[in-house]
Amino acid sequence: MKHALMALERMGLSTDLYELTMGQAFLEADIVERQATFDLSVRALPPERGYLIAAGLEQALAYIRDLRFRHEALSYLESSGHFHQEFVDYLASMRFTGSVEAIPEGTVYFPPGPLLRITAPIIEAQILETYLLTTLTFQSVVASKAARVVDAAAGRDVVDFSPRRDHGPQAGLLAARASYIGGCIGTSNVLANDQFGIPIFGTMAHSFVMFHRDEEEAFRVFSRSYPNDPTLLIDTFDTLEGARIAVKLLPELSERGQRLAAVRLDSGNLLELSAQVREILDAGGASDTIIFASGDLDEHKIARLVADGARIDGFGVGTQLGTSGDAPTLSSTYKLVACDDGAGSEVPVIKLSAAKVSLPGRKQIWRRHDDDGGLLGDTVGMEDEDLPGDPLLVPYMANGRLLRRAPELETIRDRAAEQVARLSAGTRKLRDPEPYPVEISARLRALTEQLQRR
Amino acid sequence: MKHALMALERMGLSTDLYELTMGQAFLEADIVERQATFDLSVRALPPERGYLIAAGLEQALAYIRDLRFRHEALSYLESSGHFHQEFVDYLASMRFTGSVEAIPEGTVYFPPGPLLRITAPIIEAQILETYLLTTLTFQSVVASKAARVVDAAAGRDVVDFSPRRDHGPQAGLLAARASYIGGCIGTSNVLANDQFGIPIFGTMAHSFVMFHRDEEEAFRVFSRSYPNDPTLLIDTFDTLEGARIAVKLLPELSERGQRLAAVRLDSGNLLELSAQVREILDAGGASDTIIFASGDLDEHKIARLVADGARIDGFGVGTQLGTSGDAPTLSSTYKLVACDDGAGSEVPVIKLSAAKVSLPGRKQIWRRHDDDGGLLGDTVGMEDEDLPGDPLLVPYMANGRLLRRAPELETIRDRAAEQVARLSAGTRKLRDPEPYPVEISARLRALTEQLQRR
Repeated sequence: MKHALMALERMGLSTDLYELTMGQAFLEADIVERQATFDLSVRALPPERGYLIAAGLEQALAYIRDLRFRHEALSYLESSGHFHQEFVDYLASMRFTGSVEAIPEGTVYFPPGPLLRITAPIIEAQILETYLLTTLTFQSVVASKAARVVDAAAGRDVVDFSPRRDHGPQAGLLAARASYIGGCIGTSNVLANDQFGIPIFGTMAHSFVMFHRDEEEAFRVFSRSYPNDPTLLIDTFDTLEGARIAVKLLPELSERGQRLAAVRLDSGNLLELSAQVREILDAGGASDTIIFASGDLDEHKIARLVADGARIDGFGVGTQLGTSGDAPTLSSTYKLVACDDGAGSEVPVIKLSAAKVSLPGRKQIWRRHDDDGGLLGDTVGMEDEDLPGDPLLVPYMANGRLLRRAPELETIRDRAAEQVARLSAGTRKLRDPEPYPVEISARLRALTEQLQRR
Repeated sequence: MKHALMALERMGLSTDLYELTMGQAFLEADIVERQATFDLSVRALPPERGYLIAAGLEQALAYIRDLRFRHEALSYLESSGHFHQEFVDYLASMRFTGSVEAIPEGTVYFPPGPLLRITAPIIEAQILETYLLTTLTFQSVVASKAARVVDAAAGRDVVDFSPRRDHGPQAGLLAARASYIGGCIGTSNVLANDQFGIPIFGTMAHSFVMFHRDEEEAFRVFSRSYPNDPTLLIDTFDTLEGARIAVKLLPELSERGQRLAAVRLDSGNLLELSAQVREILDAGGASDTIIFASGDLDEHKIARLVADGARIDGFGVGTQLGTSGDAPTLSSTYKLVACDDGAGSEVPVIKLSAAKVSLPGRKQIWRRHDDDGGLLGDTVGMEDEDLPGDPLLVPYMANGRLLRRAPELETIRDRAAEQVARLSAGTRKLRDPEPYPVEISARLRALTEQLQRR
């Protein structure tokens, strides 16, 4: 019975076979010193998404910094039958020596410009592809989904409840991080609190209530043992009766110095129930107790509840948040955009396969704002152009070394919130959002056409 | 810059906060010895799914066997502010002492009967919920998707190409395992070969071709360095020209004792291109070289290509396989179905929340076959009933000990293939599959109604 652990020792193997077979070919052709530049970009927004939030860069940079082929991985590669000893030896001492530019985490991003760019000797640059794609894609998917859900909640709290439905335990941890960046106030995932300091929330399951003689006993047992202000789940049998029982326990709580922090509804007509529960709580002297709702929620259901005036103060969102159910992936790519021509000069390159033309060369994205800070549009151009707006890509590594510390997660989260607030209402629409203007500079267009003709 | 590693030392923290706060309440109420039985089930099939393949049990059992709260986790819990020392001490020595019954991996499964059942003292049983749900849900999602894709390929090979689009590196490893169970012949994921012995496949990226002067040089460099028979990616510039260049290299390959194993198409009109490439290969003396296709494929596109007579021998499927794009999750639940009444007798329990009624008590699923082995239908009944058919749930742990070894992955994969072959054509339909008959036994129905009335 074998786990699926993710250990530093084998991180180098978490990749597509071809990254390694190509590396071997580069080594044997003796072109390891030739530099290459790759863009990690997204081709287009998924349906119904007006914008994306860049996320996952911290884990991407940690990977680039720490990528080593250690004993366990080397032994495996030697015995795999796909590699010569010379290449395994090369990997044993390989370190990333190149540079990384990227859009900071928490930045609002629009395709198709680069999210991240790597320049390094070809093997080092190529070998990063798979891990960087999975790392940046998944967290950006979830941060973007979270931003929508948080936007729909219109100021009410949103908590990530997704660990049980995410794509494995690590996906749960990454989803907690990304949804915090996207604006959630926290997660139910304990490991995310341990590893990233993300606030955690939780109450009880229906099983807890069912395990006791009745709700009153269950609520009493739980509240007594909980060192903070408890949240009670009141819908196991009958939500309104559950609310009355919660109110009945207020004096006991008060005696112990506890407040009833919240009640949670997890089923039924949340609109009607929340109003009725609010009445019961208010009449019972628990007007400061908040109502928390969960149960197959997404941004559309939340927007509807908010619009209809539901008396809900916070939402727990699971499946749809952590798997981004309606758009579980992005059309992200990692493309060679420039390479050493063999004589020491860098030349832009392009991929021409049907319907998948890439933008060549070293690029930058410039973002224009109006006087109030509202986002007007982006221009993707050549890095050495001087275009109006603020450049989005900044250097993170040079000569294989990190140039800056990881920002606090709070800083990233604040950046995302601040930037989403600068988007137009049309871009933020949950359905049929209006396209945000992204232009390609005249020089980049000309270069693309020139390379296409060639 | 912090990784998101998944280490044994912190496995216990990979859970929802409420699993732990409930545990603390159970401990302080001094009911830790009371036994509870939980079912892990799926409520209903996702849209367009006619059946599911159970997967992930090996990782679920490894977790149950090895779950410990070790030093790192205990230190965190002590300082988290949510727990009393007494409970942290309890966790330090907690081991799973209960029993596990489950449906073997690779078995075709239909909701809503139990996929897995846990009976143990309440804290031990409750605390497993989050990790078991994420582990069994995700692998079952992907194994089920893989079975559809493989079915659509009608005997042609399918390879998991999903690592770059999966929900993080661990999701990639789990997706490789699950898609192998569902019938893929292998994966591009190197770690899956290392950890689970799953065959790996790979060729080169477009960047490899672009990095060289031309395709001919790229193909030559790659083939020379690759110790086995190479696969060449021929669509970077012009697919037919790529095929001609591949053919041109046949004599060189032959001199080195290599065969051109395959060519891969990753863009364009795969139906037309495959026929034209087949002609070029056949005319050039490479009639044993197979044609492999990839590029945003799913079961529907593959079924169409097969129906239209595409000359494709194998498919690489990425995003849609590893994220199960159209149905990235299951409505899986972990419900208390029976518990010690406090006097030592087990009593069935039920959750009554609106629209989420669960099936109470210790249950079994019986499966009926016709004389040719075709599946006729399932009956979910009480464990001690004697119903027609073969029982699906078998014991895996008793008194905290494993009762059997993990089967070989090949055995699990063969079981899945053999069982899918026994399904009716209607159940296997890719769109609007016909419902498979699942009945609830008269006794279970009566018990459910009796508990509902109460």
